[in-house]
Amino acid sequence: MLSKSQIKLITSLKQKKYRLQHGFFVVEGLKTIAELLDSELELYQLFTTESFGDKSEKEVIITAAELKKISFLTTPNKALALFRIPEPKIIQAEGLVVALDDVRDPGNLGTIIRLCDWFGVKDLVCSKNTVDCFNPKVIQATMGSITRVNVSYLELENFLQKQTIPVFGAFMEGENVYRSALPKQGVLVMGNEANGISEIIENVITQKVSIPRFGDLQATESLNVATATAILLSEFKRS
Amino acid sequence: MLSKSQIKLITSLKQKKYRLQHGFFVVEGLKTIAELLDSELELYQLFTTESFGDKSEKEVIITAAELKKISFLTTPNKALALFRIPEPKIIQAEGLVVALDDVRDPGNLGTIIRLCDWFGVKDLVCSKNTVDCFNPKVIQATMGSITRVNVSYLELENFLQKQTIPVFGAFMEGENVYRSALPKQGVLVMGNEANGISEIIENVITQKVSIPRFGDLQATESLNVATATAILLSEFKRS
Repeated sequence: MLSKSQIKLITSLKQKKYRLQHGFFVVEGLKTIAELLDSELELYQLFTTESFGDKSEKEVIITAAELKKISFLTTPNKALALFRIPEPKIIQAEGLVVALDDVRDPGNLGTIIRLCDWFGVKDLVCSKNTVDCFNPKVIQATMGSITRVNVSYLELENFLQKQTIPVFGAFMEGENVYRSALPKQGVLVMGNEANGISEIIENVITQKVSIPRFGDLQATESLNVATATAILLSEFKRS
Repeated sequence: MLSKSQIKLITSLKQKKYRLQHGFFVVEGLKTIAELLDSELELYQLFTTESFGDKSEKEVIITAAELKKISFLTTPNKALALFRIPEPKIIQAEGLVVALDDVRDPGNLGTIIRLCDWFGVKDLVCSKNTVDCFNPKVIQATMGSITRVNVSYLELENFLQKQTIPVFGAFMEGENVYRSALPKQGVLVMGNEANGISEIIENVITQKVSIPRFGDLQATESLNVATATAILLSEFKRS
């Protein structure tokens, strides 16, 4: 049974300001919830149509109709959980670090977090205007990778200026990435969906790289930021 | 001014059966419409809040409120056009061909069409259960690439059986793609989001390839089909 105040709390968590105020984020779907339960993250409450068994003190059994009321999905998936937003971790900056300059689309951020997980990138640093990684659409797209990638929000220019390792940036007119020497340690900066990397950040980049276009002259003018990240991470890691 | 029958026609085109029945598909946004006007595709009608000037006989000037009624987007973008669905073109099968085995997500198909355009892949062949490329969400995600990539729907098993060029398939357990010899000519098969490549299609694949995972053992269990396509196309083309 769901109370009105629970419904109000959960639906408010769609917005970043209420996530910050309450300190919780929403996760949906049995598989992703199970992965998060298995991580360091702290469960606050679990609303589910079928008991998980061992979470009884935090578990609220609800009906499918109640789940529909609180779910952010078009097709709700049996359970919805509130987890506590963890304290930011220290950035290790070991190996390759990915940095995002104002990536705005939740699906893109979610896909990039999943790519970082796949390619063993431990730290993802984001400019303050990058979409919040606890946005429900981001969480949905990460498929549990959020538990294994350390996402930090910071003053990106300042962070990059302090780095002693090379700072790579993805540009339309950079050096052909297939012919670039790519080190094991470095930062790879990816830009905003519409505007690419901002001028301020461009100034602190030490090497511009670019994915060559093989189509004819009329071909698509840019790659989506998530697919470009996929190709560049693959290039850094393949060697 | 919009008539009731125009509204009914346009909103029906969200569904494949009405697209097939009427022979039209919907394109939204000034930039994508301009790109399609510049292609071989035939404009049927243009509904716009500002005149395009040279399309007067096919143009209907509408208000922003009217656009909101017919648009499939949350934030409608000044114009919506109906184009005629073109006749299928002959598959050239030159260079690299991409084949999709039941890819269901419109965003994934749109991204893959855009990737084909970027990497100079002329032919994309799809199993009959792959999402329709004239689905409005696919068209939106392609950003105009639909005019430069020839998308065909066919009996995939039969098509692949007839090929004399090598048929590659993306699997979780294939040969490390970074160590595979990749020819200039071949077919690359990508599978369904949840189930991968089906058994029937697996039987006609001559070489299984796989993108190595660099994260730790707990890392994400698979890559999204669009990001995996990005990495594999990059591998085929980089050499």
